Amino acid sequence: MTTEQLFKQIVKKKSFLCVGLDSEYEKIPAFLKTNADPIFEFNKAIVDATAAYTISYKPNLAFYESRGLKGWETLEKTVKYIKEKYPEIFVIADAKRGDIGNTSKMYAQAFFENLPFDAVTVAPYMGEDSVSPFLSYPGKFVILLALTSNKGANDFQFIENPEKEKLFEKVLKTSQKWAGSEQMMYVVGATQATMLTDVRKLVPDHFLLVPGVGAQGGSLSEVAKYGMNSKCGLIVNSSRAIIFADTTEKFAERAGEEAKKVQMEMETLLMSKNIC
Amino acid sequence: MTTEQLFKQIVKKKSFLCVGLDSEYEKIPAFLKTNADPIFEFNKAIVDATAAYTISYKPNLAFYESRGLKGWETLEKTVKYIKEKYPEIFVIADAKRGDIGNTSKMYAQAFFENLPFDAVTVAPYMGEDSVSPFLSYPGKFVILLALTSNKGANDFQFIENPEKEKLFEKVLKTSQKWAGSEQMMYVVGATQATMLTDVRKLVPDHFLLVPGVGAQGGSLSEVAKYGMNSKCGLIVNSSRAIIFADTTEKFAERAGEEAKKVQMEMETLLMSKNIC
Repeated sequence: MTTEQLFKQIVKKKSFLCVGLDSEYEKIPAFLKTNADPIFEFNKAIVDATAAYTISYKPNLAFYESRGLKGWETLEKTVKYIKEKYPEIFVIADAKRGDIGNTSKMYAQAFFENLPFDAVTVAPYMGEDSVSPFLSYPGKFVILLALTSNKGANDFQFIENPEKEKLFEKVLKTSQKWAGSEQMMYVVGATQATMLTDVRKLVPDHFLLVPGVGAQGGSLSEVAKYGMNSKCGLIVNSSRAIIFADTTEKFAERAGEEAKKVQMEMETLLMSKNIC
Repeated sequence: MTTEQLFKQIVKKKSFLCVGLDSEYEKIPAFLKTNADPIFEFNKAIVDATAAYTISYKPNLAFYESRGLKGWETLEKTVKYIKEKYPEIFVIADAKRGDIGNTSKMYAQAFFENLPFDAVTVAPYMGEDSVSPFLSYPGKFVILLALTSNKGANDFQFIENPEKEKLFEKVLKTSQKWAGSEQMMYVVGATQATMLTDVRKLVPDHFLLVPGVGAQGGSLSEVAKYGMNSKCGLIVNSSRAIIFADTTEKFAERAGEEAKKVQMEMETLLMSKNIC
């Protein structure tokens, strides 16, 4: 997928919403649990109910790996279901991988060859050769962790060098030597919305994946105010607030309603920037 | 497992070798490929041939994930085989995971509850709450990335703050507030053996997992010289130089010979420090 195709979808759906498929077994509706693969049934229903309002899905690998073999099977079925039925939707493996070169190459193969993901989140700590194997797939994206939305982000990401450059800023700068905006995006946490101004100075054109809106407390309008560019440039994720909006037989319908609510807020924000 | 139990094994086997099970399908002997699960057959033979000379095994998850469902099954069978037959051996999931709290909890469950791993490698970029869920399992260890052995380590790990403290040193210092040497170990790359002196100033008692000896070119005697403490404190990994020493029907036998060679070198080093 190209960023232009992604942008076209944003304009068409008037949305820059990503629905996080953090489908924890304990939290899905009890009545689904008699199915052979309850989490797949859950994901399928959530996807079908929300696809009109979202441009992206993001299964977080941890929720699948924690169920071992069965979980991996659910993940495979989920991503294949989405890409077959909704090929225009951008599907992200939220894996936060990163290893030495020949090993990262194996991870890239896992997500981009064996599975039809469009993007994978990657941790920057090990530097260029841990990231570059993911960059040899045209039309696929690395989404590099820059500024995360958790409390622990303060431990290392704000460390300043003598030139007053913070670690996450250094990550944004250095990684631009590895690939441009057609292969790289960045994770930038929404709990620090005003910091998006600084981020945009460094990466004016790149798409940013913004977690932490909704259950994690970020404000969508703040994110748009400080982070949106002329091609939107934002993919804002919401997980629990949408997928676990309800645990009765109406769970999918309610998830659709919640996604629509966010989409409508996004439509207003896109219109205010004359994007749609 | 406790570090005391690990140390006892080091003394008993006169070895601090970890064999990395980076069992890439393309590289295993061709004649194994008619088996239903060639990589499991390969791992089993390698483990049986090397167990007398090693105190630890370390499957790198990438080599299993790259084979999807089948790979995950191979991983499960491998770690269960090792822990059932050789319960005293320390088995590390080289996963380099790390995510926000509720997500890292799922990864911890994957490796410590569903699978019988003794330790998991974790990336530090996201800070304390991304690491702490792995620390709530007594007898299990986090092995935190500090200084890695790849070229990309230079991109961020050596960034200095105004107090001339490098990022990897900051990781070593800060993470000691999260857990002690009975729950935490560190990855310290062997291509920088002299740096182990600085590392030991910060973490005198912790075990260090040292990759990069062998195929990646580090020197074992240098690592011992600068990194060994009175309880050894080292787990030195070798992968390809042992497991792919030969690709004929003698592959396991040859892997055993290579492991024994390393063990004998380790025995000399341990004796020179009066450890055994």
